[in-house]
Amino acid sequence: MSLPAEVVELGRRAQAAAAVLAGASSAAKDAALLAGADLLEQQAPDILAANEADLEEAKKARMDAGPLDRLKLTPARISSMAEGLRTVADLADPIGEVLDGWVRPNGLEISRVRVPLGVVAIIYENRPNVTSDAAGLCLKAGNAALLRGSGSALRSNQAVAAALREGFAKAGLPQDSLVLVEDPSHEVAVGVMQLNGFVDCLIPRGGPALIASVREHATVPVVIDGDGNCHVYVDADADLDQAIEIVLNAKTQRPGVCNAAESLVVHEAVADEWLPRIASALIAEGVELVGNDGARSRVSEIGVATDDDFGREFLALKMSVAVVPSLDAAIAHVNRFGTGHTEAILTRDLAAAHRFTKEVDAAAVVVNASTRFTDGEEFGFGAEIGISTQKLHARGPMGLRELTTYKYVIWGTGQTRE
Amino acid sequence: MSLPAEVVELGRRAQAAAAVLAGASSAAKDAALLAGADLLEQQAPDILAANEADLEEAKKARMDAGPLDRLKLTPARISSMAEGLRTVADLADPIGEVLDGWVRPNGLEISRVRVPLGVVAIIYENRPNVTSDAAGLCLKAGNAALLRGSGSALRSNQAVAAALREGFAKAGLPQDSLVLVEDPSHEVAVGVMQLNGFVDCLIPRGGPALIASVREHATVPVVIDGDGNCHVYVDADADLDQAIEIVLNAKTQRPGVCNAAESLVVHEAVADEWLPRIASALIAEGVELVGNDGARSRVSEIGVATDDDFGREFLALKMSVAVVPSLDAAIAHVNRFGTGHTEAILTRDLAAAHRFTKEVDAAAVVVNASTRFTDGEEFGFGAEIGISTQKLHARGPMGLRELTTYKYVIWGTGQTRE
Repeated sequence: MSLPAEVVELGRRAQAAAAVLAGASSAAKDAALLAGADLLEQQAPDILAANEADLEEAKKARMDAGPLDRLKLTPARISSMAEGLRTVADLADPIGEVLDGWVRPNGLEISRVRVPLGVVAIIYENRPNVTSDAAGLCLKAGNAALLRGSGSALRSNQAVAAALREGFAKAGLPQDSLVLVEDPSHEVAVGVMQLNGFVDCLIPRGGPALIASVREHATVPVVIDGDGNCHVYVDADADLDQAIEIVLNAKTQRPGVCNAAESLVVHEAVADEWLPRIASALIAEGVELVGNDGARSRVSEIGVATDDDFGREFLALKMSVAVVPSLDAAIAHVNRFGTGHTEAILTRDLAAAHRFTKEVDAAAVVVNASTRFTDGEEFGFGAEIGISTQKLHARGPMGLRELTTYKYVIWGTGQTRE
Repeated sequence: MSLPAEVVELGRRAQAAAAVLAGASSAAKDAALLAGADLLEQQAPDILAANEADLEEAKKARMDAGPLDRLKLTPARISSMAEGLRTVADLADPIGEVLDGWVRPNGLEISRVRVPLGVVAIIYENRPNVTSDAAGLCLKAGNAALLRGSGSALRSNQAVAAALREGFAKAGLPQDSLVLVEDPSHEVAVGVMQLNGFVDCLIPRGGPALIASVREHATVPVVIDGDGNCHVYVDADADLDQAIEIVLNAKTQRPGVCNAAESLVVHEAVADEWLPRIASALIAEGVELVGNDGARSRVSEIGVATDDDFGREFLALKMSVAVVPSLDAAIAHVNRFGTGHTEAILTRDLAAAHRFTKEVDAAAVVVNASTRFTDGEEFGFGAEIGISTQKLHARGPMGLRELTTYKYVIWGTGQTRE
């Protein structure tokens, strides 16, 4: 596996910038973020022109309305990107925190200190705002960002990156704190996934095809931002009125995002009474329902659900419904079909809540609230780079802290080992 | 990429055991470890007989003396494996620790709780004691261990695993808390590396060929336990007598391990006086020295060092030597050739020590002590599963804590998102 020389060169540039960023003061990093924000706004006309060219080509290629909207920039969206950078500048700097420390019997003083990861690579699709959001979070955490967006957004990303790089340099930090991969080829994307020795962490942000490609090709350390097949389990002892509000919110408030609920699990003790109520309410909001026999026998509008339906992240106004005989069956169903993102139980029964939070294996387990809260902003992180569905390194929403690692610093007075 | 069905079945068994272990009490886990320790000692004759068969075959295959010694079990080594399990039983249980917690303005109570990883796969070479050490640490942290040793140790590993599995079952925990991969084929090893959805973390323990194979094939999350090309930098302001002791200890106390020093970097201000002294002392201990021009011009016994020498983990009585003109040059040399394991500075100059600890990018940076202290035991972790040279998830010695992840537990009172 020999890497394209151009990719290695990009890695080298990002790594050199990362070495400078690792030692940069909070003040210097914040100044760079603010300068980048100002330049984004000042260069908005150039960015919008570049985006217009991307949009025209995308329309010619008959891009769907959804992706087309995500590709589109407006003056308001550019301002919001700039505000995002200013928000990140206002967050506390995670670097230098002493996580713990102790003294060994031989007198060695060991401390574990938070430090940047180094070079964070992000491969993403379509949205030019990720270029700015990701570069800002990486820089604040002392990392260089190696960004590979999609070809359809290349001109937009180039214009955004140019503004930010100019801003960073103005504030005295390396332009290469943001390195944009401008070759849209698959070979180069695979090269980024295999930049061992240069990339300390790769975060793919995109659909299942991207995730599968990263799993297949990546040889650098990866944090997977995967699917959210989130469940709401309505227990025998749920507050049934509250359950209507929560399920409606979890499913319909923004159905296209990963923390929206995709599946409803209902204890049979309340299914006769409650399932017809929630089904009417969901159908009134335009939600298509598919379910198991227990669900279909109680509500005739519910279609047949296959295992594939139960395992699917619809990202749309569609929901699977399973009526289950017990809490055990509910937990088993959730652990079988869940993707380790967010799972909720609605109940007033402490023992049931306790068991669900212990036995369900997911990044976030929620009692009596909507699944929609699994989010860096809602958690209070100020911003997020993604939501991890793996267990290694970071789980759930990833903010600045999750873009760091640690080193051991050991102070001795001449100790040798016997 | 379709996985061999037998590998998937092993993953399924380990995953089912992990679900039980995640909810097991500390008392149950400790009882299982103690029962496993007792059975290891009781079944020592069977284990030694199995090991004898492995050794005979290895001798026929002309295995080198070093690997042959690592493969060999003795009654004392089996007792030491049992004692290791008892030590792990005595360690504090990391599971359930609340890492942090806070209340959001909307009243949601969020806590971050330490939980097991799930299934930890370990691919290792030759040493049958790893079977016991790894299974014990994994179980204490609530994980099932999926272990793939080398074919040369298969009978030994089977005997060790049988004793432990029987012990775990005796104490009421799943036998499959330890699942041994008994098919020694490369295809099956690759299958373990690609067990997505079953393996939550893979830790390879072995030489460069194994690491390269894992990098190439693994699609599951990996923690790399890589090379230790460790440096000792002797600063212009080092205590030169102490430096002799530390360098001798770092290089010669146990040259075959990853935290032994492989490279000596000397500030030119002290090189005339000190380099001949340390060179004589090292040569007297049988160390072969290779170095740059600055080193060779001062000590005629130092041979020529290539970049390959400076980049190599010798794991033997050989050391590279670089005389450098400045602290900056020393840091650059260490960051260029180091492998991110352990790097030491010897100095009385606070500013130099401070810069070295900040600017050198390694799991452990040491001031005025031997590199040999980067080790789970020496750090006070009680035991270690390996030493990570990557930055994701864990860095440096990995003990029980590094075999865990966390989940967010969120308590609400009906919150929905606006």
